[in-house]
Amino acid sequence: NRRYTIAVIPGDGIGKEVMPEGVRVLERAAALYGFTVEQRWHDFASCDYYARHGRMMPEDWKEQIGSPDAIFFGAVGWPETVPDHISLWGSLLQFRREYDQYVNLRPARLLPGVPSPLAGREPGSIDFWIVRENTEGEYSSVGGHMFAGTEREVVIQETVMTRFGVDRVLRYAFDLANRRPNRHLTSATKSNGIAITMPFWDQRVEAMAANYTDVRWDKYHIDILTAQFVLNPDRFDVVVASNLFGDILSDLGPACTGTIGVAPSGSINPDGTHPSLFEPVHGSAPDIAGKGIANPVGQIWSAAMMLEHLGETEAAKAIMAAIETVLKDPGLRTADLKGKAGTEECGKAIAEAL
Amino acid sequence: NRRYTIAVIPGDGIGKEVMPEGVRVLERAAALYGFTVEQRWHDFASCDYYARHGRMMPEDWKEQIGSPDAIFFGAVGWPETVPDHISLWGSLLQFRREYDQYVNLRPARLLPGVPSPLAGREPGSIDFWIVRENTEGEYSSVGGHMFAGTEREVVIQETVMTRFGVDRVLRYAFDLANRRPNRHLTSATKSNGIAITMPFWDQRVEAMAANYTDVRWDKYHIDILTAQFVLNPDRFDVVVASNLFGDILSDLGPACTGTIGVAPSGSINPDGTHPSLFEPVHGSAPDIAGKGIANPVGQIWSAAMMLEHLGETEAAKAIMAAIETVLKDPGLRTADLKGKAGTEECGKAIAEAL
Ligand SMILES: CC(C)[C@H](C(=O)O)[C@@H](O)C(=O)O
Ligand SMILES: CC(C)[C@H](C(=O)O)[C@@H](O)C(=O)O
Repeated sequence: NRRYTIAVIPGDGIGKEVMPEGVRVLERAAALYGFTVEQRWHDFASCDYYARHGRMMPEDWKEQIGSPDAIFFGAVGWPETVPDHISLWGSLLQFRREYDQYVNLRPARLLPGVPSPLAGREPGSIDFWIVRENTEGEYSSVGGHMFAGTEREVVIQETVMTRFGVDRVLRYAFDLANRRPNRHLTSATKSNGIAITMPFWDQRVEAMAANYTDVRWDKYHIDILTAQFVLNPDRFDVVVASNLFGDILSDLGPACTGTIGVAPSGSINPDGTHPSLFEPVHGSAPDIAGKGIANPVGQIWSAAMMLEHLGETEAAKAIMAAIETVLKDPGLRTADLKGKAGTEECGKAIAEAL
Repeated sequence: NRRYTIAVIPGDGIGKEVMPEGVRVLERAAALYGFTVEQRWHDFASCDYYARHGRMMPEDWKEQIGSPDAIFFGAVGWPETVPDHISLWGSLLQFRREYDQYVNLRPARLLPGVPSPLAGREPGSIDFWIVRENTEGEYSSVGGHMFAGTEREVVIQETVMTRFGVDRVLRYAFDLANRRPNRHLTSATKSNGIAITMPFWDQRVEAMAANYTDVRWDKYHIDILTAQFVLNPDRFDVVVASNLFGDILSDLGPACTGTIGVAPSGSINPDGTHPSLFEPVHGSAPDIAGKGIANPVGQIWSAAMMLEHLGETEAAKAIMAAIETVLKDPGLRTADLKGKAGTEECGKAIAEAL
């Protein structure tokens, strides 16, 4: 009997509203496909926890989480009470780094029923993966602040890239491209302007490409690449990017497919030495939190990605099919997709469509 | 008699093809509006020059350029012979820094005749300015490379932000917003992830906003901001951003309005202590260079921005009207806009429409 232990961390805002729907569909898939999910809920990694304890997570968070098969995450952040850089560096970004989840993987896929903001794009015409470096690069904790509060004030933050860190994410991306029918990889760079780190990134891409002679590859500077996402999204298959560039592209890509409300993401430790984490791309959305109108599809699609990662491929496919079925019905879509359904109604519909 | 000295630097690739059209329209505007343009052409800041001299510009480039009223620039870069970071840091980025052109100003405006890749957007519905910091931030020359060629290889590049540098570009952006009917300013940040420099940026925005009580302002993290450009481009009025974020947004914004082939930009020294520089947003486009098919509108619109900067407001407006007239005629548009006209034909048509 297949049994998975899942750490469930809803977090803040709409994270607390979409998580029950993610879990609902997960449990339903387990019943139908013959595996068991043991849920372990945690209330930390949230600003509520911060309000009570003055920190985002307990000191022994690693012990409390233990060794689950995966982490199922909602969203974190409540800027009214805790500045974002404190809430995020105290939770999500810690997981990514401490669990060495060095790949952040996100699809940009145009689904039926989700109108694209781009003119004339049909479901199926946009379908690519963004592979983002997730532990180093521009997201660094090295730097400082001098002459604070004076006219001479200066802040410095260092981007740090290592061959170790760059090569392993490139290898993951080239492997992924190699398994796709189109075998095409695009590297995001900015070596014309960011002239120390990005030429190094380019060099490593070129070196890695030599090991994958079946993969066609190209590179674009990040500025024109964002333009290409809008103008020619059908050109892309696998896009690999540094931490910051990947962050940007993996909001922009899903936006080009209609809404970031449906997009999932995996923060993956491909070596299997630590748990991987699955969460929707959207944030805690304070502006709509508490109203029961958030779109649960991002959370549910994240459940599918998690099951895929755990080897439950059939169940993952079935969830995707159920999502597509429900999205086709305007009556079951949430407000962001011009529908009338609430979070729970949409989640229940997907569980039933399974 | 109004007389302007203009340094004309065509640069590389299509820069050499669109510049004659920019100059053609400039001269025609001068004749019609009663001012004189003295052109001073320079062949440096190009990869051809590099091929002959082993550097992008002569040592005494500042003396050779002298004190023109403005610099009219084409495009630079020819990666087949000179790596981009060498060609750019040896020319364009030098101008920006040495001439203290601390504002990079770019419009995102949907013109008639230019189909937007976004569904259902009409001319007039997208009309905003991007104000980019242009001398510091992520474009730094501080950092280095260690253990090159080994497994331990590491590269570091520092983002440097100063209160001096941030405040002056914010002041420019708030002033601009204050003069616009909507009086709305959006700040691009990433203070949740880039947790040393960007929270400082946010602080300075908040401090500056206190001086502009008539300007409504908000901020978005850069990832979701790129998504908003695609989903709700009509929300924006003035967008202010750091060097890198501004670079990205000012390709994405114009892409949302159809093509970066028509977009202009000014690298401005608002203090008037050094010349400002005007150039199209597009690059040297090696893939289409030499074919006479490049769109000259970006160069010509840049001429209009330059004239506006020089106080020739009537002439600037007339050029914009001429551009709009010509763009409405499919027979006069270039291939990127699904037209059949060549670079010269399009340029001549705009000069005549004046
Ligand atoms: C060519 C490159 C260095 C430059 C930049 O990044 O500033 C260009 O993209 C621009 O926006 O003018
Ligand atoms: C919340 C934020 C720190 C985070 C990031 O920038 O990585 C988010 O945007 C994401 O993409 O998961």
